Amino acid sequence: MVSDFYGLLSDNALGMKRSAIRELLKLTRDPEIISFAGGLPAPETFPVDQLKEVMDWVMTHEAQLALQYGPTEGDMLLRELIVKNYSAFGYEITPDNVLITTASQQGLDLLAKLMCNRGDKIIVGKPTYLGGLGAFNSYGPEMIGVSLDEHGMNAAELEKALADLKKNGERAKFIYVIPDFQNPTGITMPDERRRRIIELAYEYDTLIVEDSPYHELRFEGEHQTPLYALDNNGQVITLGTFSKIFCPGFRIGWVIADPQILDKFIVAKQQVDLCTAPFNQRIAARFIERGYLGTKIKEIIEIYRVKRDTMLQAFEEYMPEGVHWTRPEGGLFLFITLPEYMDSEALAKEAIKEKVAFVPGNVFFHDNSNRHTMRINFSFASKDKNLEGVKRLANVIRKAMKK
Amino acid sequence: MVSDFYGLLSDNALGMKRSAIRELLKLTRDPEIISFAGGLPAPETFPVDQLKEVMDWVMTHEAQLALQYGPTEGDMLLRELIVKNYSAFGYEITPDNVLITTASQQGLDLLAKLMCNRGDKIIVGKPTYLGGLGAFNSYGPEMIGVSLDEHGMNAAELEKALADLKKNGERAKFIYVIPDFQNPTGITMPDERRRRIIELAYEYDTLIVEDSPYHELRFEGEHQTPLYALDNNGQVITLGTFSKIFCPGFRIGWVIADPQILDKFIVAKQQVDLCTAPFNQRIAARFIERGYLGTKIKEIIEIYRVKRDTMLQAFEEYMPEGVHWTRPEGGLFLFITLPEYMDSEALAKEAIKEKVAFVPGNVFFHDNSNRHTMRINFSFASKDKNLEGVKRLANVIRKAMKK
Repeated sequence: MVSDFYGLLSDNALGMKRSAIRELLKLTRDPEIISFAGGLPAPETFPVDQLKEVMDWVMTHEAQLALQYGPTEGDMLLRELIVKNYSAFGYEITPDNVLITTASQQGLDLLAKLMCNRGDKIIVGKPTYLGGLGAFNSYGPEMIGVSLDEHGMNAAELEKALADLKKNGERAKFIYVIPDFQNPTGITMPDERRRRIIELAYEYDTLIVEDSPYHELRFEGEHQTPLYALDNNGQVITLGTFSKIFCPGFRIGWVIADPQILDKFIVAKQQVDLCTAPFNQRIAARFIERGYLGTKIKEIIEIYRVKRDTMLQAFEEYMPEGVHWTRPEGGLFLFITLPEYMDSEALAKEAIKEKVAFVPGNVFFHDNSNRHTMRINFSFASKDKNLEGVKRLANVIRKAMKK
Repeated sequence: MVSDFYGLLSDNALGMKRSAIRELLKLTRDPEIISFAGGLPAPETFPVDQLKEVMDWVMTHEAQLALQYGPTEGDMLLRELIVKNYSAFGYEITPDNVLITTASQQGLDLLAKLMCNRGDKIIVGKPTYLGGLGAFNSYGPEMIGVSLDEHGMNAAELEKALADLKKNGERAKFIYVIPDFQNPTGITMPDERRRRIIELAYEYDTLIVEDSPYHELRFEGEHQTPLYALDNNGQVITLGTFSKIFCPGFRIGWVIADPQILDKFIVAKQQVDLCTAPFNQRIAARFIERGYLGTKIKEIIEIYRVKRDTMLQAFEEYMPEGVHWTRPEGGLFLFITLPEYMDSEALAKEAIKEKVAFVPGNVFFHDNSNRHTMRINFSFASKDKNLEGVKRLANVIRKAMKK
């Protein structure tokens, strides 16, 4: 080996953190463990038979297209179908607003690469998506955390953060929000809050990144308008993905943005992987074209609603006093707040012994704070395991409280 | 839009260049144009029937694994099969040396992200792979070009470059080489040159990146030992891909490195796309397991050999005096050198009018020099089109010479 390997590494490399939940997720491969830890969709929702049919068709009729290199922007048919889907949510876009990415994690990577010099300021929720924090952190910006209240990112606190930056002659590169069934909290922003955040972006001359992997998975309540559709000034970027409504194993996501912004994403994507797998894109396109996606989403909603209900009932029944949790109207997660003296990392180790796993909440905070919180996934395990897992978890918490 | 969009962009974004051949490749979609421009494998080599069979099997027997998220390191079965393949080339490795990437372009991106601060020095061939230049450039290192001779990267010139850096108290972050059937020149490094470059890496305490997408596509002559297999000190990183021996539309590549180095690649990959499509990896693994890859490679070699031979014969027959070209023993490309007064970018425009396309050679030089060169792909078009295309190209060159 070279004499000083670390001396060869970039500042980016030296600043990268191994995902805190990786080791935890490895432990959860033990089939006896009931895992609330991952953000995994339910495997029983994967459209196996329909995929078989579509794959056979594509391989018979357009294999040479699907197996060759494709354009960096993505498969035109797929981009057109995404445009059509989003028009139902109030988006006024054309394929020129859509770039296909290698799942939405790549959207986050390209975003940070395009926007962040080391030390640049960006705004993130407290808490927010761990993969977003990882992608951003790998380029070394300074993250400014803004708390969430029951309606998502706190607007007054956001305004203060933006005003403080302005006072220092700086501006935030972007505000990162997950408006629907937020990861990790499950909280949804009502339209009013969305409008307020857009106003602040206008006033303080910055962009909003709307990461929206779950917005179609609403079990109840009113659909809220995507920030992109509320914005009239090209300042919102939407990140989307098929991972939660089709299957994660295909790794297809997209960026929707003003063409001036999107053009930068296209050039950046060219350098990182040339194009997203044309085969996977074409299968997804033909799958949507046959109407299978719409049906699939309805089916997933029914399954997840039951899993969530089971879990919420189990929480009511088994959790000791002093434990609080969110009641999400959709998505995959809910968030638990324990009494402040408790430490969920220590608890996670005890929980593994009792064969139940979750992710300590502090990893979703850019400053690693709030160790008395935890994220619970309700989509992956079966209804019965959700129930049994909550029982086990409640016992672990109760035991730790007595100490 | 924000008031100063460019003010929001990172130095990386401001320095990124749109691929010079993108617009050219778009033009070549015209079916009347014979394209020697892309680096596309021949579509008739895609294993359509075998893939149908393997996909059906995977979707019947392991769909829930293939459609779910997978580990960042990649599918263990695929990593084991890659280890087995490479043991035949003299690699002494285990799956702990192998990371699956979203094709080898991602390997190049991760490499540059891990190694390069803006202004850091790296060594590249003159010429070298355009996608490598793009990936590196997007992180802003300073590239030092070392000429190629008929045996690849010139060792004396490389030594001088490394010694000059040392004099200034600097060191190269890595030396980037494509040892087999180099893109764009088709040149292969003999073992002796490889050993010399490794000695220089030891002496000047740096890493070698061996980008090797074509090394199994040898039509004639002796197999040369991969640099990785010649190195005893963990200083060589190999990048590989299925794009040229299976199909590019699956986007699967890999990085082989010492575990200390690979660990950094794994952490970096986690931030950029979490994992490469598990479906695609599993299909590739089962495809290899059935012995289909070995047979496919033999078939591709036979097809490409004939295409190359046709092209070389056509060059002999039609090219005017003063035009020189390489005679690759494998791979996808050969490289033309015109008289120095000629400009291949201007020629490319004339060629399009005559319905033949190629890539001007200067785009493969980090300093955009050598405008009197051109890269010719012989794998994509049919034998007959290769012949007809060379005729057209010879006419375009002859006409330009008369002027």
